[in-house]
Amino acid sequence: MGHALGTLEELPLAYRAALARNSLAPLWPMMRNVLPHGAPQPVSRQNLWRFETLRPLLLEAGDLTPVEKAERRVLVLTDPGRGEGAMQATSVIYVGMQLLKPGETAPAHRHTPSAARIIVEGEGAYTVVDGEKCPMHRGDLVLTPGGAWHDHGHSGTEPVIWLDALDLPLFVYLEGSYAEEAPLQAPRNRPDASEAEYLSAGLVPSRRPDRAPVSRYPMLRYPWSRTEAALRSLGALAAPGEAVELDYVNPETGESCLPTLGFTAMLLRPGEKATPPLRSSSAVFHVISGTGTSTVNGERFAWGPADTFSAPVFSTLTHEADGTEPAFLIRIHDRPLQERLGYFEERVRP
Amino acid sequence: MGHALGTLEELPLAYRAALARNSLAPLWPMMRNVLPHGAPQPVSRQNLWRFETLRPLLLEAGDLTPVEKAERRVLVLTDPGRGEGAMQATSVIYVGMQLLKPGETAPAHRHTPSAARIIVEGEGAYTVVDGEKCPMHRGDLVLTPGGAWHDHGHSGTEPVIWLDALDLPLFVYLEGSYAEEAPLQAPRNRPDASEAEYLSAGLVPSRRPDRAPVSRYPMLRYPWSRTEAALRSLGALAAPGEAVELDYVNPETGESCLPTLGFTAMLLRPGEKATPPLRSSSAVFHVISGTGTSTVNGERFAWGPADTFSAPVFSTLTHEADGTEPAFLIRIHDRPLQERLGYFEERVRP
Amino acid sequence: MGHALGTLEELPLAYRAALARNSLAPLWPMMRNVLPHGAPQPVSRQNLWRFETLRPLLLEAGDLTPVEKAERRVLVLTDPGRGEGAMQATSVIYVGMQLLKPGETAPAHRHTPSAARIIVEGEGAYTVVDGEKCPMHRGDLVLTPGGAWHDHGHSGTEPVIWLDALDLPLFVYLEGSYAEEAPLQAPRNRPDASEAEYLSAGLVPSRRPDRAPVSRYPMLRYPWSRTEAALRSLGALAAPGEAVELDYVNPETGESCLPTLGFTAMLLRPGEKATPPLRSSSAVFHVISGTGTSTVNGERFAWGPADTFSAPVFSTLTHEADGTEPAFLIRIHDRPLQERLGYFEERVRP
Amino acid sequence: MGHALGTLEELPLAYRAALARNSLAPLWPMMRNVLPHGAPQPVSRQNLWRFETLRPLLLEAGDLTPVEKAERRVLVLTDPGRGEGAMQATSVIYVGMQLLKPGETAPAHRHTPSAARIIVEGEGAYTVVDGEKCPMHRGDLVLTPGGAWHDHGHSGTEPVIWLDALDLPLFVYLEGSYAEEAPLQAPRNRPDASEAEYLSAGLVPSRRPDRAPVSRYPMLRYPWSRTEAALRSLGALAAPGEAVELDYVNPETGESCLPTLGFTAMLLRPGEKATPPLRSSSAVFHVISGTGTSTVNGERFAWGPADTFSAPVFSTLTHEADGTEPAFLIRIHDRPLQERLGYFEERVRP
Repeated sequence: MGHALGTLEELPLAYRAALARNSLAPLWPMMRNVLPHGAPQPVSRQNLWRFETLRPLLLEAGDLTPVEKAERRVLVLTDPGRGEGAMQATSVIYVGMQLLKPGETAPAHRHTPSAARIIVEGEGAYTVVDGEKCPMHRGDLVLTPGGAWHDHGHSGTEPVIWLDALDLPLFVYLEGSYAEEAPLQAPRNRPDASEAEYLSAGLVPSRRPDRAPVSRYPMLRYPWSRTEAALRSLGALAAPGEAVELDYVNPETGESCLPTLGFTAMLLRPGEKATPPLRSSSAVFHVISGTGTSTVNGERFAWGPADTFSAPVFSTLTHEADGTEPAFLIRIHDRPLQERLGYFEERVRP
Repeated sequence: MGHALGTLEELPLAYRAALARNSLAPLWPMMRNVLPHGAPQPVSRQNLWRFETLRPLLLEAGDLTPVEKAERRVLVLTDPGRGEGAMQATSVIYVGMQLLKPGETAPAHRHTPSAARIIVEGEGAYTVVDGEKCPMHRGDLVLTPGGAWHDHGHSGTEPVIWLDALDLPLFVYLEGSYAEEAPLQAPRNRPDASEAEYLSAGLVPSRRPDRAPVSRYPMLRYPWSRTEAALRSLGALAAPGEAVELDYVNPETGESCLPTLGFTAMLLRPGEKATPPLRSSSAVFHVISGTGTSTVNGERFAWGPADTFSAPVFSTLTHEADGTEPAFLIRIHDRPLQERLGYFEERVRP
Repeated sequence: MGHALGTLEELPLAYRAALARNSLAPLWPMMRNVLPHGAPQPVSRQNLWRFETLRPLLLEAGDLTPVEKAERRVLVLTDPGRGEGAMQATSVIYVGMQLLKPGETAPAHRHTPSAARIIVEGEGAYTVVDGEKCPMHRGDLVLTPGGAWHDHGHSGTEPVIWLDALDLPLFVYLEGSYAEEAPLQAPRNRPDASEAEYLSAGLVPSRRPDRAPVSRYPMLRYPWSRTEAALRSLGALAAPGEAVELDYVNPETGESCLPTLGFTAMLLRPGEKATPPLRSSSAVFHVISGTGTSTVNGERFAWGPADTFSAPVFSTLTHEADGTEPAFLIRIHDRPLQERLGYFEERVRP
Repeated sequence: MGHALGTLEELPLAYRAALARNSLAPLWPMMRNVLPHGAPQPVSRQNLWRFETLRPLLLEAGDLTPVEKAERRVLVLTDPGRGEGAMQATSVIYVGMQLLKPGETAPAHRHTPSAARIIVEGEGAYTVVDGEKCPMHRGDLVLTPGGAWHDHGHSGTEPVIWLDALDLPLFVYLEGSYAEEAPLQAPRNRPDASEAEYLSAGLVPSRRPDRAPVSRYPMLRYPWSRTEAALRSLGALAAPGEAVELDYVNPETGESCLPTLGFTAMLLRPGEKATPPLRSSSAVFHVISGTGTSTVNGERFAWGPADTFSAPVFSTLTHEADGTEPAFLIRIHDRPLQERLGYFEERVRP
């Protein structure tokens, strides 16, 4: 096993030319590249994006480019393993930081990739998704699923920054990524579903056959205040060493809130080092509050509020909160995609 | 259509005797009975059970029969359409009122039918379900699904009364009803899942492949305080005439909290008459708080807290709260069973 | 456990009268009846209906009652455990034998219960189901699901007899049984789906989003010739003692062909005694061909072609084919219903 | 809409350098590339691989490289839109042509991508999948799903050629592709499931709770003889212009036979031009028998037996069989993947 296979160079030049001319290629010289032994060999590399570095560059973008010439004024977090300008943080996960200044709007569009935002800084912005107006408070998760019309506005007084997470790289890979545009939406004048239909676990609006069916995405906003409270309740009861983690799901089905991307809220207890298993999914961690340290494949990242770091597939990870207060993070990952493919794997740490 | 079919009497006596001797029977004389035209002809009849009448009879049962000789000291609400002693309120729904006195226990058992309780009066009782200890506060819904070990205890100082709802008649009909007994369980010493794992809509504990799978019934208690708050939020936004109703569901799947019985919490706004559609499901309504009036098939029921009333399949219904405060009811019904059979029907009121 | 509970007679007469007056009943005197220990106590009793006995009685019905006065000229196989005239063979399963004479028709109707037929004798009859005309050959299984319009006709020259199996008792129990009538249907003029769309395992018509969705019941006829061939192939490879059984399923979903009733084709190899496990489902066995002997709860039934016998829930069973040829039976059962309820149980034979 | 956005060049060099230094990139200059208006802009380009060209090159590979130095002696059909050596025919679909000479074996391995083979030429080869030995006859489809051990052998006398289709590019993209190796398997000595358990539509082996659960892939071989017969039956009844197509599905669930790749058998009637809708899925067509012409995005491909051609996403297509006999093709596509992602789209041809 693992013995040497024939190489491209061993083949006669004329034969190689004949193959190329006919859009053919020998598999065996590439076999170990595309099917390595025992584990994938990711190109992606872990990275830490410190908010104190990123923030001034994003504000500078606001000065350099009017929103009309940007549509979405976003700095993309690019995977250092792929080199300059890569529109992705890992294979499947795109993460950008978006700036919206008071009074600005981002025009309505919809696209095949799905997106979610996590609000990082500033009050007063909102997203309208298929006519539902979602306020955006620090830490809130707001969905704009594939195919849903969405635009943004800002009626506050300070710049607002949020994180965008998309499965854009997957749709680009599938040759399925495209967008359509439309005028700003007139929002319906009532609170979003998280404030009306979906408050408490285990309760959903009763359906009538003569009414519209439940939306595929009935809950578009997940208020952070509720997530933090739920994590604290769970954390108070968890055994030492037990992960304190909640997945964001569709309250009508229990499925991941988006088809391909998963969002997991994490509480790290001070004085306890978390050592999660190796996972076939890649991840991007965003810090909501607290400070701490993570190691990713041996690289040490000291993080604080609004920092973001990535971990490729099968990364060796540790997390530890500093000080005396718990730290709160949201993990963005592609486990739902992998589970839909019947492919998701966890391995005990070596 | 609907023309006269041959009767049993038209057949020769010798022929009828030969059929009976061979365990045979002609269909046609019975055809209109078992397959009536256009709508079922239910035997069940609506009824109101007033708590002020029932309560003293239940307390008297406590004096007449020690709990050891009753196991469960329960008065069953019997369908008047079926005559004395019927162990059911409608075809599928059994409802009983159970009394537990301070210090008493109800021994552990499990059975094929599924049960849920709604707490009516008194503090200090608890149910242990497969080792999970659930406190029982007024209005709480507590599940003891088919196959789950459960026992009850009471560490308070006053008698406790709760309502039991079961699909017992269905299992008796299926010739599938039986029970097993066991000693009292030693409860695990932590709050039940509604206080730890399942608080907020759209958030569930993150799973690890190396951990135990999620229980088929991950949430066994639905605290009334949360249900009432959610109904009030929904009611504040509902359009006039819109039903303000929440279904109790499994937070991991969105399915009905029990396989055959459904539980729907209702808020009735004062000054508004609700006129739900005719439904193929039968129902039992239990009043948590408030007063009002319902008509069922033309019969008028004036109800108040802790009262209970029934409605057979395809009943014509109206509901109206009195006074200035909303009324809260829980509707117990067999719609989940009918939906599993691909049979559930709503009709516009004639 | 299992100790004596209080009886009804131990309660004061005045108290019992007060309960009855208020549609209440004590649970505990009935507790062991509705929740027996360890296993259900079925009322149903096994029975054998010999075709040679039944056939002349059915033909006599044809003479006594014109089809216009019968709509469906059927002799119902009645459970001897329930006494004369019971419209059921077990709790859930209704089985009747229907006679259609040349040139007769059975008018179109539809009803909430689901039905299937197994053709017993005679050629030339057909069933039209929602416009699809299904021929009826010996041993064929033809579905008329709940809600589907169906009528029968007969263009042959000899009387035709078929077996009807319905979940009628369940719908009567649910107070959900009713029918509607209509004129005879004009059948679409092409072979039924078993001859066109659904021939081979693992192949289904490719769908287009712009076309009608797949019917809930895409395959209405299961030709016996294919079932027998498939059983013979499976049987040739089965280990000694292994059950050679095929379930009839929806080829688009793999689910049982009807929501509540299951149909299982069985091959019994000569010289081998089958001893299936105890099952919580009840069953009716119909012999397509071959002769043999079964014991049901100790009672011995010697059967031949077109005979039918029943087995209540948790029956102890053996089956054995006579002679040198395999015997073929179809088992009608309510396992799909029980699986939908999360309740189906098999026990090793004691 | 579609107005000009700011370009990278408009940004100050120092700013661009600061972004690059911090693994950041502006979105807006790339916005139209990753989210084009109205439709994707595929890189993939259609191509025809003629078997008469490919076959001698594949046989030459057999002379140039012993199977031991190739493991799998395969020529990959490379997308001309991606340039020399691309290990894919479209984004998601890998197709290779594999040669196995008499007496050769391909060692056992398993990998995360899923594969299927279509036998093109030669008799006597077989694939062993998780111990099940599948013969390989011309046109047969044989599955080796992700995670399943498989090896190949050849006991015939002439070289065998088959087509391999894999979702390898998807797994490479996901950074999830890897393989493990093992010794050759000892096959179980009985016919594969297509010859025993799964013959006829709508019939599946009856399950017992005490037995092993059904495999995720219960049917590993789909014999071409059955597929062709089923297509002919369907085709005899189809309306003019109606597509005569069968999808290969799991007979226990009706789901696509592999999680991401779909296989659709097509019959083209002579004298009839098929004009399928535009689809968001990409496709590779392989000709089993017959001759004809297809146009893909205006490019004309005249094809015959064993030829293969590709069509990127949203291709404009026509197909037409020559002569008087129907042509049979198998279409390999990624529609199941797209449906799992909630993303699959068909558009009426412009």
